[in-house]
Formats: sequence, structure tokens, C-alpha cells
Amino acid sequence: MSKRLTMIALLLAAWPALADDASNLNPGVTTSELLATAPVHWVSVPQIAASLEGQPPMAVGFDVDDTVLFSTPCFYYGKNRYSPGSEDYLKMDEFWTDIHTNNCDQYSMPKEVARELLDMHVARGDDIYFITGRTKGSGEETLTATLQKTFDLEKMHDVVFTASSENKVQFLKDHGLKIYYGDADSDMRAALEAGIRPIRVMRAQNSSYKPDPRNGSFGEEVIVNSTQ
Amino acid sequence: MSKRLTMIALLLAAWPALADDASNLNPGVTTSELLATAPVHWVSVPQIAASLEGQPPMAVGFDVDDTVLFSTPCFYYGKNRYSPGSEDYLKMDEFWTDIHTNNCDQYSMPKEVARELLDMHVARGDDIYFITGRTKGSGEETLTATLQKTFDLEKMHDVVFTASSENKVQFLKDHGLKIYYGDADSDMRAALEAGIRPIRVMRAQNSSYKPDPRNGSFGEEVIVNSTQ
Amino acid sequence: MSKRLTMIALLLAAWPALADDASNLNPGVTTSELLATAPVHWVSVPQIAASLEGQPPMAVGFDVDDTVLFSTPCFYYGKNRYSPGSEDYLKMDEFWTDIHTNNCDQYSMPKEVARELLDMHVARGDDIYFITGRTKGSGEETLTATLQKTFDLEKMHDVVFTASSENKVQFLKDHGLKIYYGDADSDMRAALEAGIRPIRVMRAQNSSYKPDPRNGSFGEEVIVNSTQ
Amino acid sequence: MSKRLTMIALLLAAWPALADDASNLNPGVTTSELLATAPVHWVSVPQIAASLEGQPPMAVGFDVDDTVLFSTPCFYYGKNRYSPGSEDYLKMDEFWTDIHTNNCDQYSMPKEVARELLDMHVARGDDIYFITGRTKGSGEETLTATLQKTFDLEKMHDVVFTASSENKVQFLKDHGLKIYYGDADSDMRAALEAGIRPIRVMRAQNSSYKPDPRNGSFGEEVIVNSTQ
Ligand SMILES: [Mg+2]
Ligand SMILES: [Mg+2]
Ligand SMILES: [Mg+2]
Ligand SMILES: [Mg+2]
Repeated sequence: MSKRLTMIALLLAAWPALADDASNLNPGVTTSELLATAPVHWVSVPQIAASLEGQPPMAVGFDVDDTVLFSTPCFYYGKNRYSPGSEDYLKMDEFWTDIHTNNCDQYSMPKEVARELLDMHVARGDDIYFITGRTKGSGEETLTATLQKTFDLEKMHDVVFTASSENKVQFLKDHGLKIYYGDADSDMRAALEAGIRPIRVMRAQNSSYKPDPRNGSFGEEVIVNSTQ
Repeated sequence: MSKRLTMIALLLAAWPALADDASNLNPGVTTSELLATAPVHWVSVPQIAASLEGQPPMAVGFDVDDTVLFSTPCFYYGKNRYSPGSEDYLKMDEFWTDIHTNNCDQYSMPKEVARELLDMHVARGDDIYFITGRTKGSGEETLTATLQKTFDLEKMHDVVFTASSENKVQFLKDHGLKIYYGDADSDMRAALEAGIRPIRVMRAQNSSYKPDPRNGSFGEEVIVNSTQ
Repeated sequence: MSKRLTMIALLLAAWPALADDASNLNPGVTTSELLATAPVHWVSVPQIAASLEGQPPMAVGFDVDDTVLFSTPCFYYGKNRYSPGSEDYLKMDEFWTDIHTNNCDQYSMPKEVARELLDMHVARGDDIYFITGRTKGSGEETLTATLQKTFDLEKMHDVVFTASSENKVQFLKDHGLKIYYGDADSDMRAALEAGIRPIRVMRAQNSSYKPDPRNGSFGEEVIVNSTQ
Repeated sequence: MSKRLTMIALLLAAWPALADDASNLNPGVTTSELLATAPVHWVSVPQIAASLEGQPPMAVGFDVDDTVLFSTPCFYYGKNRYSPGSEDYLKMDEFWTDIHTNNCDQYSMPKEVARELLDMHVARGDDIYFITGRTKGSGEETLTATLQKTFDLEKMHDVVFTASSENKVQFLKDHGLKIYYGDADSDMRAALEAGIRPIRVMRAQNSSYKPDPRNGSFGEEVIVNSTQ
């Protein structure tokens, strides 16, 4: 029996109901829904580069989780291990120490968009900071070395662990950063508070950090195809 | 001043607010929204052709308005002329007679998808019917000649004017049609009632016939890129 | 026989081939294609309004065809009547005179986005110009009256018929316009040449004016959901 | 200075070039591109459930990687550790043994779509198999226990490790499976070879398994929103 006949036979018993009264089963789609686009200011990495042409080297900052690393595996592991069913692990020094001293980030995949952005800023001679809301824990941290190696960075500052959003704003101001890249609303808010340019990197859909942010909700630029 | 500097100057006073509290102004978009697809059985014209391979010539039917012709211009004109602000014109013999004897369809653009479908069925040797819910009016009708010329059809049946959905179902049964193409829910329902295969053509977004149908809401096949 | 059994029976002979070797028939789609977004600066009408807050009334301009009116019916009719198979009709005074003195625009549907934009600018007290690349023809024009009535405009300038792009740029400069809305690349270019803010309205897909413009190709703002 | 004025000042030096000649920088987008949909037979989990209504319990199979688990973290880790820059690690017993005996899948996130599908099939009383192309390695495997716990499965067969596609086809036939869910073309091909119903689960965009498959390329059903 040919593959095609096989399929027809298989589908005999497998056809979703075609019925009028099955509106929940078959929601359908309207033309307007297919055409709809959100009023978002999308930009590409080359467009960002073009916007910086002619400007002297500057300091720029990147959030870490879901901006440059897809680190959900560590958080998934940590929650199951330290506080199944709750978010308590995020407040346990034991979790953070485990993550950083055992280099959990060997399971955190670098984001392609981060590589493109970093390459662009390195080529410009910009000064690069990674600023994370993670807690450092009580041991050594392996994140700086991981980022340096993963992104082939010749020189970089040690990752900055800010315990709070206020600290992050202060850091952005104190070090004169001009751009801050992040995936979370709190990243965009920190940049705006500090009076600098916020640029949104999209969080991957399979990140465990929920709910999904509404990219562009501050009117900020959002990088296309930046989930990966 | 360069175009770029011109634009920067223009945008100085033109920037949409970037603010936290402006959630209505900047709805943003989530990754999941970007990825979302409706559970619809999309098909292309070549896929329909492949599904008919090996079958003898058959009779097939097409709805007219928004399926083979974008005839909204005639309805827009008619409403303004005969019953501004209401749908009464659709029940006036005067409107239908005007439309058909004055050949309003010289303003009705043929749909590309219809041309593709008709070419495919003609090549197969199928027998083609156009079945419309339009009222004929009391004069001569120009629709048959318009369709024949517009779609380069060597032979075709005169357009069938059915006054009701029941008549349409009866016609589909009496003439042994195998497929019925249409844009409206009532077209899909008529085909299902007649026990034949319904295939959805998408209504153009700028059709005056509202609301937009939910294509695929019967579980039926929907033709991709068929708004045009 | 139930509708569902009917459909199963129908599909027995109607199933698109499921086969490995049918890559052209079944192109499929990748996750990245589903997620892809163009780097375009989309805006909504309320975002444009917000960008103008606090600014005194100003003069703004609108292109006509495919920006405020879906006038393809007139061009479709004209081509068939005056130069089937060629674009010569666009250079015939006879065509333009026919269109304007016989009020072909009774078949031209107003665009919803235009209504929204006009309402917003009228509410601001802005001075509104319609500037078209159409030729006036040798009779009276009915376009001004059509626009005034269709969009409920209390006062407006007579439609400006510019024979060329250079004339359009000069007009924009001479009358001190601040924004120019249009669907064509030439509209965006004219605004940039004149040193004013270009805003793109999307041309409907079923417009006969081809090829489709690449909205956003000048880095300009593009209005969401503006095909209709 | 208000946030809005801050942003305007920031954007002064940051505006992407608006220029005619910058077509590569600003590709724009056409209306037709926005409307385009692939001719894919999308289905939802409830539609699959409806297609099985009235059928007795059956055996169904699931691929593991990228179908029920997002296991890229383990492959990313393994490649860096065992064969940086090449795919050789996939042929090293050392890698597979490490993965399975050290339970690398504690970093593999379950897919939501898998949970929905499993819940549906369990509720039907179906017999569930997990069939993977992974090599087992020379130690104990932890995958069966991980899946059982992660998806709350009361009873399940031990994961089937098939060394080849031929083995997979044979297994599907020998055990009388009716449906096989997978993300890879090879999964769809195996199901078709075995004469059973293939259903595609979309691989997440950030999977390291490239290139992205063209979902629907066999004409098979593809589950909506199944990347996560
Ligand atoms: Mg983050
Ligand atoms: Mg119709
Ligand atoms: Mg125009
Ligand atoms: Mg797989």
C-alpha cells in the first residue's frame, strides 16, 4: 500500500469533526487577525549599529539571564532540588552557591542575538558590562569566566551582582552607561530611571520566567528575532 | 542638512511617550503571541489539485462575491445610493436591477486565487458552476458574461441565482457537485448540508461584508493567501 | 449520515499526498519563520497622536489613492476600458476626465485608518491637505466633494493635483506641512526631500498598484493595521 | 527631566538612518508578506482528542528529545566537554554514559505540549511508549524515571533506545502503535514507513539541533503552539 493510501486509511478514523456547533474545537482565524501587527518599534542589530555611527566608544550594559544566556536549565534544576513547587529557592544562599560554584552555566546556552550585539560593540571599542540581578552566593562565581569564554571576549569587567533594582539604576548612572539591554520590564525601567537608552531583547518562549513580558510596552526598541 | 539629520530633528518633537504608565498606548507583544497559529487546515491550490489526482472530471461550484470577485465597490455604491446607513438596499429590486443591467461588475476585481482555481479545474475538464446568493433583479444580468470574459472561460453555465440557502443546498445535490468554494460561513454550511467538500476562500479584509468570517471554523480546508 | 461521516467519506478521495518526495507540494514552515518579524517601526494612530501632544495646530498632508481611498475599482475599470493590457490609460486625458466628471469615486471605498487619522487631526485643529499624483483631466473634478462628504470634513482645501513628484516636494515646502501620509515609496521620498515627517499607510493587498511597497524601507514609521 | 524628554534626548544621537539608499538596513515588509501563511495542516490537542473519540484504547509513541523534553542543555554541555567544535561526542559512549548515569535530564525541561498530549492519552487509557534515538550508554539510564516523575505517569514502559531508524520502524510495527509524535523529519518518516499516523510537535527555536525542520513537509498534522 502506498504511503498516500496508508494515510487516507489512517485518516478515516481520525478526522476532526467538521461541524457547525464545534466552535470551540475549531476557532478558525480572520483575515484581520492574520494581518494584525503590534505597534512596536522593531530594530535589527545592524540598525542599532547604524544608529551609533559616528559616536565615540561608550559603555554599554547587558542583563544576563534570558538576555545573553538561556539559563532556565539552572533555575529549573534549582527549583526541583531546593524548593519544589515554590519560588523559595531564589532566596536560598545554598541554591546560589550551588549554581555558581558548580558552574551550572555549563548548561546555559548563549543567545545568538547576544553574540551579534557583543561583536558589534566590541568592534566599536565599547566598554562592556554584564549586570545581573542574581545573588552571588557565598562561594566563588563562575559566571564571569563562562561569559568571557562563551562570547570570546578579550577583556570584560567582572559580572556585576546587584541585589536590587535601585542598585542597578545607581550603577548605570555611576559608570556612565549609554545603553542597557535586557529582557525584563525591570531592565527597561532601570534604564529609563537612569536616563539611558533601553533596548529590549526578547525572552525565549520556553524560559521558566513567567509571565512573558510585553516587549515594547515602554515604547522602547525591540530587537527582531532575539528570542534565540 | 542630510536626510538623517532632518529626521532626527523632526523626531525631536515627535517621539511617542516612553513610559511605564502608558500601557494602553504601548501594548507591546509577547513571544507567544508572535508564535501563535490557529488550528486551521491550510491548503494551497496545488495541494487541492494533488488531492484530485486520478479522479474523473467532476462538477464543482463557486460562490461569486468575495470568492471570485471583489465586488464590494458595487455594494458600497448601492448602499450610498439606495439606503445610506442601512442594509435595506439589499432588498430593493431597483438596486439589483441597477447593478446588473448597468454592469456594475466592471468595477469588481477578479480574485487571483479564483483564477488559479478555475485554471486548475478547467485543465482537469471539470464542469464549473457559479452559484450566487445575489438577487437577479428585473432586467438582464451581465454577471455571466463578465465572469466568462474576466476568467477566460470557454464554456460555463449561466450564473445560478439562488434566492435562499435551501435552494443552494438543493442545487448542489441535484447537480451532483463534489466541491463548493466560498468565503462565507453559509457557503461552508451549504456544502456540508449537501454532503460535499467545502473549501474556504478568504474574504478580503476591505470587503464591506462584516463581520469577517472565522476561516476554518467548520474544520474545513482554507486556501492560503486567498484574500486576493 | 452525520456531517462528520460525510466529511470522512469525502476526504477518502481527497487527501493531499503525504510524501517525503513532495517537498514542493508541502513546503512546511519552520519555527523561526513563524517568529520572524521585520525590523519596522510600527506605530498606532494613538501613538502618533501622543507624539504630537503639546504641539500647536499644524498643516498635514495625505496622499489620496490607497492612502485615504481604495480606488483600485476606478483604475481597474479604466484600464479595461481605455487600454486593456497596458498602462497607457494613465496618460489619456479621456480616462482622467471620465473618472472625475462621472464621479468614479462613488466606487472608491474610504479607508478606516484614514478616518481615524483625519478625526485625530481635525480634533487637534490641524489644517488638512489632500495631495494626489492623479491628473485632473479637462472637466470638473468630483474628488474634493467626495472626500469632504465621505470623511465628514467641515472644511478642507481643494484636492491638490500635482503632475510630478518635484511639484509635490515644492508644495510640501511652500505650505509648511509637518507630516505627509502616503502608501507609496514616492510619497515617503517626497516627504524626506521636503524635510518633513513621513508616515506610511499600508496599501491594501488587493490594490492593482503593484508591486507591493516594502513598508518601512526608509526607516519611517508604518501604521499598524492600515491596509483597511 | 521627564522620562519622555530623556528618551528624546537619547534618541537624538541614536536614530537609525532614514534613507533611500539603505535598502539593506531597512528591508521593510509587504502586506502580502504579513498575510502569508504556509499550507500546513495545523491541529490543536483538543482536535486530536476529538479525532480519536469513539476509538478503543490504543498504543501511541513519543519521541523524546525536543518532543517531550527540551534537552538541548545536555547536548550543549556534552559537546563543549567531549568534542568542542564537532559532533563527535554523539558517538562517544563516554558522553552517553555521563548523560544518563549523572542524570543530566535534571536540566531538561518538560514541554507543555507533551504534558497536554500525555494527559489526554492517559485519560483515554492509551498505552504510552517513549522511543528515542539516543544511545543508552554503558551504565544505568535515568531517563525512564525522569519522564515518569516529570509527567506524573502512573505506569509507562521503559524508554526504548533504538540505535537506528530501521529499528524504530520495526518497533512501531511490532507493538501496533497507532500514532507517533515527533519533532524531526526522521520521526515523521518512520511513522509513514510503519503505516501509522505521524503528528508533528514543533522543535523549540533555541534547540541546538539544526537546521530547523520544515514542519508539515510531509503533509502531516502539526500541533499549534507546540514549541514549548
Ligand atoms: Mg533577564
Ligand atoms: Mg461570498
Ligand atoms: Mg497612493
Ligand atoms: Mg526529537
